[in-house]
Amino acid sequence: MSLPAARPKALRCDATVAWTALQGHYQAHGRALDLREAFARDPQRFDAFALEAPEVFADLSKNRWDLATRRLLIELARECGLETRRDAMLAGAPINSTEGRAVLHTALRAPRGQGLFSDEVHEVLDRMLAFAEQVRDTAASGITDVVNIGIGGSDLGPQMVVPALEAFAHPAIRCHFVSNVDGHDIAPVLQRLDARHTLFIVASKTFTTQETMANAAVARQWFLDAGRAPADIARHFVGATTNQKAAAEFGIETTFGFWDWVGGRYSLWSAIGLPIAIAIGADNFRALLAGAHAMDRHFAEAPLESNLPVLLGLLDVWYRNFHGFTSRSVAPYHQGLKRLPAYLQQLEMESNGKCVDADGQPLPFGTSPVVWGEPGTNGQHAYFQMLHQGTDVIPVEFIAVKHPTHDHADLHTKALANCLAQAQALMQGKTSDAALGEKAPTASATLDPLTLARHRSFPGNRPSTMLLLDRLTPRALGALIALYEHRVFTSGAVWGINSFDQWGVELGKALCNQLLPRLADGPAKGDVAGLDASTAGLLRRLLA
Amino acid sequence: MSLPAARPKALRCDATVAWTALQGHYQAHGRALDLREAFARDPQRFDAFALEAPEVFADLSKNRWDLATRRLLIELARECGLETRRDAMLAGAPINSTEGRAVLHTALRAPRGQGLFSDEVHEVLDRMLAFAEQVRDTAASGITDVVNIGIGGSDLGPQMVVPALEAFAHPAIRCHFVSNVDGHDIAPVLQRLDARHTLFIVASKTFTTQETMANAAVARQWFLDAGRAPADIARHFVGATTNQKAAAEFGIETTFGFWDWVGGRYSLWSAIGLPIAIAIGADNFRALLAGAHAMDRHFAEAPLESNLPVLLGLLDVWYRNFHGFTSRSVAPYHQGLKRLPAYLQQLEMESNGKCVDADGQPLPFGTSPVVWGEPGTNGQHAYFQMLHQGTDVIPVEFIAVKHPTHDHADLHTKALANCLAQAQALMQGKTSDAALGEKAPTASATLDPLTLARHRSFPGNRPSTMLLLDRLTPRALGALIALYEHRVFTSGAVWGINSFDQWGVELGKALCNQLLPRLADGPAKGDVAGLDASTAGLLRRLLA
Repeated sequence: MSLPAARPKALRCDATVAWTALQGHYQAHGRALDLREAFARDPQRFDAFALEAPEVFADLSKNRWDLATRRLLIELARECGLETRRDAMLAGAPINSTEGRAVLHTALRAPRGQGLFSDEVHEVLDRMLAFAEQVRDTAASGITDVVNIGIGGSDLGPQMVVPALEAFAHPAIRCHFVSNVDGHDIAPVLQRLDARHTLFIVASKTFTTQETMANAAVARQWFLDAGRAPADIARHFVGATTNQKAAAEFGIETTFGFWDWVGGRYSLWSAIGLPIAIAIGADNFRALLAGAHAMDRHFAEAPLESNLPVLLGLLDVWYRNFHGFTSRSVAPYHQGLKRLPAYLQQLEMESNGKCVDADGQPLPFGTSPVVWGEPGTNGQHAYFQMLHQGTDVIPVEFIAVKHPTHDHADLHTKALANCLAQAQALMQGKTSDAALGEKAPTASATLDPLTLARHRSFPGNRPSTMLLLDRLTPRALGALIALYEHRVFTSGAVWGINSFDQWGVELGKALCNQLLPRLADGPAKGDVAGLDASTAGLLRRLLA
Repeated sequence: MSLPAARPKALRCDATVAWTALQGHYQAHGRALDLREAFARDPQRFDAFALEAPEVFADLSKNRWDLATRRLLIELARECGLETRRDAMLAGAPINSTEGRAVLHTALRAPRGQGLFSDEVHEVLDRMLAFAEQVRDTAASGITDVVNIGIGGSDLGPQMVVPALEAFAHPAIRCHFVSNVDGHDIAPVLQRLDARHTLFIVASKTFTTQETMANAAVARQWFLDAGRAPADIARHFVGATTNQKAAAEFGIETTFGFWDWVGGRYSLWSAIGLPIAIAIGADNFRALLAGAHAMDRHFAEAPLESNLPVLLGLLDVWYRNFHGFTSRSVAPYHQGLKRLPAYLQQLEMESNGKCVDADGQPLPFGTSPVVWGEPGTNGQHAYFQMLHQGTDVIPVEFIAVKHPTHDHADLHTKALANCLAQAQALMQGKTSDAALGEKAPTASATLDPLTLARHRSFPGNRPSTMLLLDRLTPRALGALIALYEHRVFTSGAVWGINSFDQWGVELGKALCNQLLPRLADGPAKGDVAGLDASTAGLLRRLLA
């Protein structure tokens, strides 16, 4: 197959005409835009900023932008060659230029015969789903517990998706996730397991990841200590890896591979998704892929003006580089999405948390924001105080589902009312005059009423986005995740970043390898030669 | 008892001499301070910034400050009347001025006979711990599962502490936490339970919290549907509440109360800690209290120069208001502390996420930062890329334990080596010249070596703090949590904030109550009159 060139010619955002225009627009209109006035002025504002994408309806109207902002942002995207860059990714160009790799997670969810590398992809997929179904036949397999041992991209995807799709999960199989090299992760998990009924998945592309190998070794030893024979390892350990040789040395015979064009944080669609497939079964896993594929088509084909991942990515740029907001809070009003923020932290911050562009030139503007959050309504009783009354503006992204996958209609209505109310409150705010007219039963009776009213007032004009799913099905979740992937691509492309490498993790790994012998039993233990005084002091203290 | 006045006279930080001096100091020295040079210049730097507090050793030397900064920050604290404010809190003054309440979580952990309200505190504590021990006698109690139904402060403390102290927990009792009004929280929990062996704790000071009451009603119905009799409710539901009347109407006979001087986010030491007491037992719960009390004494008595919560709080002010850092990442290298970031989000952001001072005057400077994070080493494989190579400086707080509470020595050594290495890497960085001299096996062979080196370089000079515990015991965890409480007090006092109210949660509650009838079955369903176009549009869509 002939692949296109690595990087099509395009401008970095700060060299474009649109960027300069946006700077002027921000000073003239953007900074002062008041959402309450904007809604009062334009009865069509909701419709103008409502958007339908596959499985996801988005209301972008409560964001601090107007039609002119959106137009300029789309011009910015065009000047930055977003469409060409996107097409290059989808066509398999080696857009991960520092590693010389293509970026083809979209190929993992293309229907049979349609995507690049379709034969390879569907061969592994078919085999993996057949295996998952075998495990799910618990009467035959004897498996009640599945332990995924993996970290980063080999952990966060499955760890996020499995609880999200609990309503679709096999009722008699429990999934556990061990990632941290800290032994307080694996120790309590093993304590709850019966070796005869446990399947371990060792998930590491190279089968060399420090944490994963250390935990796999502990699991293997535990398995043998529990009275199982070495020959049983092949039936109770499988690998999501391309290193069949190392897996075989471990005792693993069954492996599911993937390719160098699957980045870790984009890998839940590949063999790394095996725990998901075991939890929800082959048909549901295919629905997850189909949802993501539908979003891929939307990203590839919808005009930029109505392209949801593109608009979300551009809004991120607007907030980060013009408004100067440094973080975004994500508030899924669905407890099953409790690990979505952690998943998005890797997806966004590892992809775009970079300070040089693809050419290695230092970037003079901010890139990835901090992404953080907890499910609503929990967050309301924790940090929402700061979202409403703190000194910084933090855009909030609400996610809600129209229909629940449980039977408690009353609870669901309350969850939705809370979700809408929070977005409304952030925008609406409350003047101290309004607060002055209200009763506050828990307030101090001796406090001056005006002072109290100031405490009870809210600045308002705080932006939020609402993403609405019909129901959190495998298909809808697949679309939602792909939406985030392409949104990160969009902001990364505008910023001119290579969103697909992660050189920032290398230095810590190298230094860890140098420190290990100084901490472990052996001739170098306690050696502090060449260390800075802080590291040396801490090392001495740890060994004292 | 005669209580002191609400607020001793003191200056707000931006009116002090020290604040102005710090501004000059920042321009002259602070902004340009390079940690690598600072260590090279001063061989005593580690010792100068190392600090011993009860159960916690802190290394503050890898922060972007020097001895002059610290001296000025301490002057700032003095000018702001920190010591007087602290003493007022400890003496029971109504420092929560907007609610006219004292703030006495420290009284909850004072030894018998020593603190304020000691008789009341120890009466409830004794009764609660006796009850916990009864439950823990599982042969007699028949209880295998405890479900805490509470939200915010009635959830995050126990939810954080119970897994942290898993090594000390009753092996035959499982603790569950239901908080979210979203039904996807309680539904899967109930599915796993047997009503005959389950104890529900309904945790709500007023017994009116919307989420908690809704979930308690669902649990009660489930209990009855499972064939239990109404008379059994009193044996399977208890209350952590002061509203005995409402609890009795629910069918609850056993309640444990607390007082209006216990704020929600400071309440795990009170009856809200019942799930903790059941999990770890009376002696361990007392050890948790004793650890917190030891930190209280340190905060009350240690000179500001060696007062750990004070120094951490002042460093937060330095970073927030002079360096302009907007978030802090917390990285506990202990998987048991996986919920510490969520706990700290409430503690810090609900306490200090405010934009008016205690007098109701708007604050012209930033207050609470965003606090966020995941356990190490997991974070390293997710967002640490951004900490190392992102465009923003984000101070990182590492937490490590010298000795694990598991048997996997090899894993623990690896966890520690990673923790030290990350802090080292953040500070040390790597020049592109250094990167140019190294091999990078996974790099593209066709990329220009200098471009690649720029991708592989790290700015360094990124600050971090290391908190070291000997072992994560109940006592150590108590001290650690109290350390955070007093640190938040310190920055709040300097900023002149009332850190103990939370008016920012009221508006959303009120708007929710207005939206509920428009979403629920009834005459108002679908009514959008008076709503902004976005809320109206979303409401219509949800009901379509």
